[in-house]
Amino acid sequence: MSYVVGVDFGTLSARAVVVDARDGAELGSAVHDYRHAVMDRTLAATGAELPPQWALQDPDDYLEALRTAVPEAVRAAGISPDEVVGIGTDFTASSPMPVLADGTPLCKVPGFEDRPHAYVKLWKHHAQQQADRVNAVAEQRGEPWLARYGGRISSEWEFAKALQVLEEDPEAYERMDRWLEAADWIVWQLCGHETRTICTAGYKAIHQDGAYPSEDYLRQLDERFEDFVSAKLDGPLLPLGARAGDLTAEAAGWTGLPEGIAVSVGNIDAHVTAPAARAIETGQMLMIMGTSTCHVMNAEQLAEVPGMCGVVRDGIVPGLYGYEAGQTGVGDIFAWFLDESVPPRYHEEARARGVALHDHLSQLAGEQEVGAHGLVALDWNNGNRSVLVDHELSGLIVGLTLATRAEDIYRALIEATAFGTRVILDAFAAAGQPVAELFAAGGLIKNPLVMQIYADVTRMPLHLAVSEQGPALGSAMHAAVAAGVHADIRAAAEVMGKVARDAYVPDEARADAYDALYEHYVRLHDHFGRGGDDVMHSLRHARPRELARG
Amino acid sequence: MSYVVGVDFGTLSARAVVVDARDGAELGSAVHDYRHAVMDRTLAATGAELPPQWALQDPDDYLEALRTAVPEAVRAAGISPDEVVGIGTDFTASSPMPVLADGTPLCKVPGFEDRPHAYVKLWKHHAQQQADRVNAVAEQRGEPWLARYGGRISSEWEFAKALQVLEEDPEAYERMDRWLEAADWIVWQLCGHETRTICTAGYKAIHQDGAYPSEDYLRQLDERFEDFVSAKLDGPLLPLGARAGDLTAEAAGWTGLPEGIAVSVGNIDAHVTAPAARAIETGQMLMIMGTSTCHVMNAEQLAEVPGMCGVVRDGIVPGLYGYEAGQTGVGDIFAWFLDESVPPRYHEEARARGVALHDHLSQLAGEQEVGAHGLVALDWNNGNRSVLVDHELSGLIVGLTLATRAEDIYRALIEATAFGTRVILDAFAAAGQPVAELFAAGGLIKNPLVMQIYADVTRMPLHLAVSEQGPALGSAMHAAVAAGVHADIRAAAEVMGKVARDAYVPDEARADAYDALYEHYVRLHDHFGRGGDDVMHSLRHARPRELARG
Repeated sequence: MSYVVGVDFGTLSARAVVVDARDGAELGSAVHDYRHAVMDRTLAATGAELPPQWALQDPDDYLEALRTAVPEAVRAAGISPDEVVGIGTDFTASSPMPVLADGTPLCKVPGFEDRPHAYVKLWKHHAQQQADRVNAVAEQRGEPWLARYGGRISSEWEFAKALQVLEEDPEAYERMDRWLEAADWIVWQLCGHETRTICTAGYKAIHQDGAYPSEDYLRQLDERFEDFVSAKLDGPLLPLGARAGDLTAEAAGWTGLPEGIAVSVGNIDAHVTAPAARAIETGQMLMIMGTSTCHVMNAEQLAEVPGMCGVVRDGIVPGLYGYEAGQTGVGDIFAWFLDESVPPRYHEEARARGVALHDHLSQLAGEQEVGAHGLVALDWNNGNRSVLVDHELSGLIVGLTLATRAEDIYRALIEATAFGTRVILDAFAAAGQPVAELFAAGGLIKNPLVMQIYADVTRMPLHLAVSEQGPALGSAMHAAVAAGVHADIRAAAEVMGKVARDAYVPDEARADAYDALYEHYVRLHDHFGRGGDDVMHSLRHARPRELARG
Repeated sequence: MSYVVGVDFGTLSARAVVVDARDGAELGSAVHDYRHAVMDRTLAATGAELPPQWALQDPDDYLEALRTAVPEAVRAAGISPDEVVGIGTDFTASSPMPVLADGTPLCKVPGFEDRPHAYVKLWKHHAQQQADRVNAVAEQRGEPWLARYGGRISSEWEFAKALQVLEEDPEAYERMDRWLEAADWIVWQLCGHETRTICTAGYKAIHQDGAYPSEDYLRQLDERFEDFVSAKLDGPLLPLGARAGDLTAEAAGWTGLPEGIAVSVGNIDAHVTAPAARAIETGQMLMIMGTSTCHVMNAEQLAEVPGMCGVVRDGIVPGLYGYEAGQTGVGDIFAWFLDESVPPRYHEEARARGVALHDHLSQLAGEQEVGAHGLVALDWNNGNRSVLVDHELSGLIVGLTLATRAEDIYRALIEATAFGTRVILDAFAAAGQPVAELFAAGGLIKNPLVMQIYADVTRMPLHLAVSEQGPALGSAMHAAVAAGVHADIRAAAEVMGKVARDAYVPDEARADAYDALYEHYVRLHDHFGRGGDDVMHSLRHARPRELARG
């Protein structure tokens, strides 16, 4: 009687895993692809076109995942459902949604099915205009919480998105009783009542030092927004690992799990990976490396590190301050380069060798000595979050010659993202919160060239999160805590977490060579990112129209 | 009795054309590909490997062109050889070669066939180490001629290359009686005695105000070099259009032309194109646009324009100062991008449409509004000649996003080279020699997108040199002057030159939009090219080894 289920709700699919809480053994897993995926061009219900920067989801897809992936994972594990003692979940964030008082998604309320603002606003939906006001008013008023978010509230987060609903569809705003993260809504569906966690409230809803933003502040954003917190947001916040409630009969029916087992409170996909990799002590930074990279780290002290995404007390593990930083483009940039800049002969060579193009280029690039390509790049093709907090920055490459080849640029782009991480490490060190150990998780850890470059550039050994299930294992660990199998998340991490320590270690000579290139990176970083030359902003604003693509 | 023959000796082939001197009608032409092409990897005679930066030619290939292309062009013209009254030639430069007193190329002297230094050093052969000393000593001594060459004597020119022979193969240096441009040597072969022109001496051999560099200066470069000028270079210099002599019986045998007809003095391919396009008056600048761009312009006054390649009295047309400026990478950069950065689907689309990849990308890029791609590039992938005179600079692109596509970068690169030309125009204007009219010749004039962008960026109408024969027509015009058909090159240009005036005219709105982008270009140009950030030099020097390719 020690099995737990973790469900990781990602951008395009949900993954369920069944884990033995005694040793972390992953016994079975299953994936469910969302039927509506991401609605970023049209609303499925009407076929109506959506504006740029929009990205919606249909919450039915999440419930469908509970009905399919969970029972499938249990079957794959070869255990009896009766042996499962708890279920935990994690979600993309910030992905907030409007619901009625009973939890019904607004988009399922008759008359609202055809309204885009009634759906889940996925993390990659941006309400930039509203975020600009959220920030401007906060700066003007000197709101103390602003510095906890690197000085900038994101256009992805709850306040900007809620304000967008209010302004663009006041009826929808009026009709919604509650506004919450899908991370918290899915828990509501499992245990039958609303709960919220310290984590989502802190990182996505500006909850700091026991309070949300004041009514004064909200009124200044919009008079109708004054009671947003009290009416649609406020309520008790539960710590991570807490038992949100018991699995309802209805949810037991969906999942095939026993009614009444423990349901743990919601969590964020990146954060839940930290205990899964045993990276939860002070100074242990975990990079979750995929299309973008999320850096999470715990520390005993509160510090305001410039350009971080957020620092929240008890935000990742209870008892410590949880720091989050981020790079907005990492794997995305490599994929863009592969799709848009690699000439046919490399594709043919890769085919002839029977390897993926990424692997072919990685091998060619891996044969080079540091600096041989003569290039330095800025990894800002998708803007910059940490430490500049400026999404209008753009990518740059310098050093191009007629002898520059695809593998050279590919390597330079990988190096640029590693330099970007080093800038973040430097910022933490400068703020008195040095990073003592570096962990990596996510899809990119399978590329040895990327991993070795990160070790060399940061001059730190890399410890890898080796679970194949990623965040789902972390969610299962939280379920084990909620079910009382383990006393707390530390104890769970001890026996259920998995890490390959020192999987990559820095090479002294290469690290020395990178020090010199990093100096160039920093000089370019500061020149183009801190006002020396404002060309990136000018180019962005001078565009006669938003290009439709991309 | 008014036909003339022009022969243009290019990098890989020579082209002969038969022209009617009365109206410039091009009656027939023929091309001869050099058997040895460019020897830049191995010496054909021995198979021995050549160092990087080397590029040799075998002068037998030039004679072979006289034997094949000239009679073929005459046959194609359908005229009798007896009706030809003169022959003129132009050549790549600086492409100097060592010869004996009787004109025998050193590489044809027994015992020297296997010595690389006995061959023609093609323009793209670089003697950088020697050029650095040529410049350092000149700067130190304050040689007044240095400013005539934009402050930098090129590693492509005669002094650096001769010094390289002396240092690396003293026996070859000792054995050679004369050192001269292939442009002058081919005339020697045609008329039987050595002549040199004001043009090659001025632009490639530092002949200014009636003198070559002094013996004092030469001794300081190397004691053994003291008598280089007096022993191997000096002699009378003939004006352009002069009759070097009469076609010898031997050369008449090679070419099938009548013995005794006029042979005009040698000339440089870029310069000879100016009269062919009727661009020979003060303020008329001609851009010869191919892999690189050469800018030539005449003016009544002498001015020292920063970063030009050279200014020579009577250097392009008698009576005026001839200015030359240059961009080291233009078509080369576009070709590099096409080869190295365009993904397969564009190749497939071009194939499906039955058009060349250049045309396909040009069409896609041509549909964009100015600034829509959000990019600015520096066109320095092959260094920069005018106005920075720094071959260690490199290319840069800024503004990249995940939505950037191949046609965006392609257009940005074209624009960058146009901005590079505008920098040159600005430098001439600032030096008090404004460019009044802009002409274009060379392979790139066939690309309407490139031409329109140049017109828009410079805000000047473009007049095109429309002869299919390029420089060969200009050589034929000089032959007509040497033969006495026309009084001088102005008169010849009047009746034989061909230009399509106002082939492209600037669009006001686009020109305005480009003004803003040009400001960014100039700021990047100055920051990276004038010491604001020395990253390009550092990257070049930090490379652990010269990459073999390219």
